[in-house]
Amino acid sequence: MRRLLPYFLFLSTIAGPTFCDGLPAKEPVDLLVRGGTVVTMDAEFRVIDDGALAVKDGKLAAVGKSTDLTSRFEAQRTLDADGAIIMPGLINAHGHAAMSLFRGLADDRALMDWLRNYIFPAEAKFVDEAFVRAGTKLALLEMALGGTTTYVDMYYFEDAVADETAKAGLRGVLGQTLIDFPAPDFKTWDAMTAATDAYLAKWKGHRLIVPALAPHAPYTVSPEHLQEVKQLSDKHGAPILLHVAETKQEIKDVREKYQATPVVHLDKLGLLCPRLIAKHVVWATDDELLLLKKHNVGVAHCPQSNMKLASGIAPVPKMLELKLAVGLGTDGPASNNDLDMWEEIDTAAKLHKVATGDPTVLSAREALAMATIEGARAIHLAERIGSLEVGKEADFILVGSNAPHQIPLYDVYSQLAYATKASDVRTVVVAGKVIVADRRPATLDPEAIRSDAARYRDQIRTLLAK
Amino acid sequence: MRRLLPYFLFLSTIAGPTFCDGLPAKEPVDLLVRGGTVVTMDAEFRVIDDGALAVKDGKLAAVGKSTDLTSRFEAQRTLDADGAIIMPGLINAHGHAAMSLFRGLADDRALMDWLRNYIFPAEAKFVDEAFVRAGTKLALLEMALGGTTTYVDMYYFEDAVADETAKAGLRGVLGQTLIDFPAPDFKTWDAMTAATDAYLAKWKGHRLIVPALAPHAPYTVSPEHLQEVKQLSDKHGAPILLHVAETKQEIKDVREKYQATPVVHLDKLGLLCPRLIAKHVVWATDDELLLLKKHNVGVAHCPQSNMKLASGIAPVPKMLELKLAVGLGTDGPASNNDLDMWEEIDTAAKLHKVATGDPTVLSAREALAMATIEGARAIHLAERIGSLEVGKEADFILVGSNAPHQIPLYDVYSQLAYATKASDVRTVVVAGKVIVADRRPATLDPEAIRSDAARYRDQIRTLLAK
Repeated sequence: MRRLLPYFLFLSTIAGPTFCDGLPAKEPVDLLVRGGTVVTMDAEFRVIDDGALAVKDGKLAAVGKSTDLTSRFEAQRTLDADGAIIMPGLINAHGHAAMSLFRGLADDRALMDWLRNYIFPAEAKFVDEAFVRAGTKLALLEMALGGTTTYVDMYYFEDAVADETAKAGLRGVLGQTLIDFPAPDFKTWDAMTAATDAYLAKWKGHRLIVPALAPHAPYTVSPEHLQEVKQLSDKHGAPILLHVAETKQEIKDVREKYQATPVVHLDKLGLLCPRLIAKHVVWATDDELLLLKKHNVGVAHCPQSNMKLASGIAPVPKMLELKLAVGLGTDGPASNNDLDMWEEIDTAAKLHKVATGDPTVLSAREALAMATIEGARAIHLAERIGSLEVGKEADFILVGSNAPHQIPLYDVYSQLAYATKASDVRTVVVAGKVIVADRRPATLDPEAIRSDAARYRDQIRTLLAK
Repeated sequence: MRRLLPYFLFLSTIAGPTFCDGLPAKEPVDLLVRGGTVVTMDAEFRVIDDGALAVKDGKLAAVGKSTDLTSRFEAQRTLDADGAIIMPGLINAHGHAAMSLFRGLADDRALMDWLRNYIFPAEAKFVDEAFVRAGTKLALLEMALGGTTTYVDMYYFEDAVADETAKAGLRGVLGQTLIDFPAPDFKTWDAMTAATDAYLAKWKGHRLIVPALAPHAPYTVSPEHLQEVKQLSDKHGAPILLHVAETKQEIKDVREKYQATPVVHLDKLGLLCPRLIAKHVVWATDDELLLLKKHNVGVAHCPQSNMKLASGIAPVPKMLELKLAVGLGTDGPASNNDLDMWEEIDTAAKLHKVATGDPTVLSAREALAMATIEGARAIHLAERIGSLEVGKEADFILVGSNAPHQIPLYDVYSQLAYATKASDVRTVVVAGKVIVADRRPATLDPEAIRSDAARYRDQIRTLLAK
């Protein structure tokens, strides 16, 4: 038998389109996923029972009924969804992936105590390129296993983040940090901008990576420097990632320094534009939200981080009413402490109900949209990702829907938003490539990642014990 | 070999205590769990690295270092924790288990729309003993897999709930509903009280089941009837489970009817007592909390349910300051939509930080305590469960701590409260009996439960489509 195997494999590879019984030739595709409930998140919110997807060259060639697609396409590879939900991959609109190595280092502390006595000393001592690679890989593994296919990142050594992300096969909008202080990677503003300019040029047009600029915040980057950031963004067409109006303290500080709130300050500087992704936006007036809407700024809402750091509750129902594009983000794993988008969806839907006193705001479907198509709008990639539609990138996940915590199934959006867990995600595909197959990572090495994490933990504990 | 096997088994069974090399004989125990990090949740919050538990007659015979317990005890059965965390089983202090069959039936609706147009019609049509058994089994399966070993329940046909719970091997404080309206199980008050009297007598002293009275709420049970409930409670020494001050509407209604807030109304009636478990307690003044404390009333805080139904945010930091016993509950799966205690722990810790604007309130350890030892105090069972201490019931769980979302590990309480998921629970033991072994249920049949749930779903969907 052993000697016959290559022969059979050869046969199955060359089979391709068939001509028989007068039927038209089948179109060749790379991958056919069939036999699941397709939750498209398209403009009509179509849900297709016994649905299927066809993938060619990493893009969606068709979305429809299993029977239709099976008769229309001849696939190199076929995946049986076995009744799972087939839906767009989740989009994590804000985080600091490499901080996964600081997860749980210091919780339940006031922000300044946390920063000054734990995070800053640990960052100053440990954050180099190797640390960022190790931390990013740990975060990529957690995100991939939980069904996140695209994430937005702000950290140091972002070229290494991009390299690890591309190797792992996830999609990233990856922002190189620019800040008015010496950083772990670059010590001066000029060195930061020069390196960022080169970074943006290097990754421009990459299939998976959108290189971006990440000026830290209006209170840590001067007006002149923010305008330089805008020029670099214009030069490369690159997104700008920025913490905006996260805390009351920030509002106070920016007001004192610039006689304007953060949003108005940014507007004056010309930073509000359709390439800006504003993180948090907890403290913004209705007028400021209108200003963000006018400039098509995207917003990344981080409910769990805002709760844990006691930052406040962002006016999300108002944002949605104004049709602002709002995505969901986990923030960094040192302030959450995980990268679980399912919990952000669930928390977002519940938090705004209790905050407004209205159980009808932020429905299950709206919350799920914030992690898919609205998240894609918020990060300015809705033309390419966020829903299952022909021509979009084949970024999708297969999610089991038969665990005890999920059944019975009455409404697919309720089940996904309120009862589904990261552990229900089975298979993850980005740009047509399977990166998690039935819960097994295909591109990342869990044992090597664990061993790196343990090594850094031992070193960091030793430092903090001093 | 096959014929020799019984001989070896016989040898291993009779081995028992050994006398050799002058060492003292080992004490026989039923079960030894070793090689894990024991998080005791005892008064000193001891954490024992490379720790172990010894179990005899369903109770904890010893808690200590693996080396010590291994040399001291000869166990019938030994479980290697393989580095997992060994901790008390979680306590779900409030829910309506059988409503799992209504999970996701109707979300994002105002309470009265939800009740009148969905839940009441579905209950009137479907809730009979068979439904309650099927729904309770589904909930038991979900709870067991997620590490809940004790739960508090308020529903109909509670004798059937007790029967299914005892068969599944979980621990329950199970309250038969008493209400001033015809209920699915009993149509008159007299029938309810007679049946409850018999129910309390039948299950009194059961190892796993604490039978209880569950008058629905101060606005659905008359003052006279509440006093009858108190008499039955006194007669049997049975706990009273009661929804108290859940919504603003309830405060208004009770005030109008009885010229007192719910807490004061209950105090006047003599209902406040050390056997009362008050559910929710969202709207209570400081004076009312003091009143609850004075009578040693336990409180079941349900953060996710209160958020989803927009009921409000309970004054939990104030309760803890007053040293009230506060546990955590999921509420029913129709208003949450799961029975995941890990999410309640995480949400409780985060919700009260943002509600108070103080990131230091409700620490990871305090939140975890609310799901274990404080939960046990809240349901008046702290003498028997809630922490790993010699003489207490052997209710414990083994929780993996090496998943990508959990590492690295700096602080065990942070990891458990903020990063651990129900899917990390591996093995669950109640009263010394293994009910989940390495994620496989040992006492419940998932396929039969799934098939029942699907059948009810089809029937209920048909009814609601009309």
